[in-house]
Amino acid sequence: MKFDIVTVFPEAFESYLSSSIIGRAIKKKLIKVNIHNLRRWTSDKRKTVDDRPFGGGPGMVLKVEPIAKAIRSLTKQQTTNNKQRKAKIRIILLSAKGKLFSQKDARRLARYKQLILISGRYEGVDERVKKYLTDEELSIGQYVLTGGELPAMVVIDACARLIPGVLGKQESLQDESFSEENYLEYPQYTRPETFGVKGKNRRVPKVLLSGDHRKIKEWREKNSKFGRQTFNS
Amino acid sequence: MKFDIVTVFPEAFESYLSSSIIGRAIKKKLIKVNIHNLRRWTSDKRKTVDDRPFGGGPGMVLKVEPIAKAIRSLTKQQTTNNKQRKAKIRIILLSAKGKLFSQKDARRLARYKQLILISGRYEGVDERVKKYLTDEELSIGQYVLTGGELPAMVVIDACARLIPGVLGKQESLQDESFSEENYLEYPQYTRPETFGVKGKNRRVPKVLLSGDHRKIKEWREKNSKFGRQTFNS
Repeated sequence: MKFDIVTVFPEAFESYLSSSIIGRAIKKKLIKVNIHNLRRWTSDKRKTVDDRPFGGGPGMVLKVEPIAKAIRSLTKQQTTNNKQRKAKIRIILLSAKGKLFSQKDARRLARYKQLILISGRYEGVDERVKKYLTDEELSIGQYVLTGGELPAMVVIDACARLIPGVLGKQESLQDESFSEENYLEYPQYTRPETFGVKGKNRRVPKVLLSGDHRKIKEWREKNSKFGRQTFNS
Repeated sequence: MKFDIVTVFPEAFESYLSSSIIGRAIKKKLIKVNIHNLRRWTSDKRKTVDDRPFGGGPGMVLKVEPIAKAIRSLTKQQTTNNKQRKAKIRIILLSAKGKLFSQKDARRLARYKQLILISGRYEGVDERVKKYLTDEELSIGQYVLTGGELPAMVVIDACARLIPGVLGKQESLQDESFSEENYLEYPQYTRPETFGVKGKNRRVPKVLLSGDHRKIKEWREKNSKFGRQTFNS
């Protein structure tokens, strides 16, 4: 799976993409991530990517032209047929106004061959980008960030870990008795059995040490914070 | 404002924290971000931070001991009085099971002097960390990530931009007629007035070119996707 990020801060991504599970997935060629500087697609000397908003107001707005050129360039091989392109490539604008990204979206997007992620400035992106150039607009949560760079990394991380081989044996969520969602919901404990916090001994719940797998399963279900619905819907 | 991140992937943060608006805020000493390797607080030769879950199941669980030591060390100067500590420092576990982080939380957390952010592995963290060692558990969205590293960056980004001086004049959201929230909700347009997409001319809505400020305000309110409630509640 290939990810293309279009951003005005290409230097923001390197450490994250070269470390941890994602870094390993790239080294193993399970995923490919290309970072593109939006300024590459400007045509003036000053490489202008933004301008003041029509109608007034604070902040700057990312211009439609460089983004249009970026998308055209990154989908070049596929543009003979828009329907074919849409089956393989998904073009996403990341912004605070977008639809809330969920685990269901991660599963849906992980099926594409290529994601083009436009990291908008959170101050604003010309609305024509959303309306005419991208397939969807996503927000990673109900908060305001300085830009769409972290959101692009979040989408890559959430999708990449669903690709077979990306999670190693240790992190693998494939287990006969637990779904990916369920797995995250119940309280986990590991050694030591007793741990002192401010003079009090804090113990692991006895049932988890019982070896009684049915009871353990029941306890975990009872203590799951979210129903499966949360992540599936 | 100071942020302390405790992580098993300290190398994941550098690029993000040295670029963009956040990088500038650090250079201007408006915020300080320290990255701590959790392994620093292990006591065995192999620097073990995780172990298998009690009760069975896949994955590994972050141990309570190194995290307890990390928190003790990072709050050392304040531990004479827990109430005093709680007024200045907030200790947060980032995980998929936490309460959903929102803009309201960003505003609340931006008032602390210090945030200690524990980047959990998403596979699991010993429940005693949440129950006895941290002040709250937060999730940045309803999706599963490989770890709490991106969530820590998201919390820092969302809080930092609320600190006076962090957003430059260009990005400033202080404007007499727009609240921070409102500002993000309406469609933005900038030059050119007309832009051709696949043979069709896509124009900026006429009202935005009218110079009629009342009409522009009305149009923006009508075309805001979310009510103020969304970000305020």
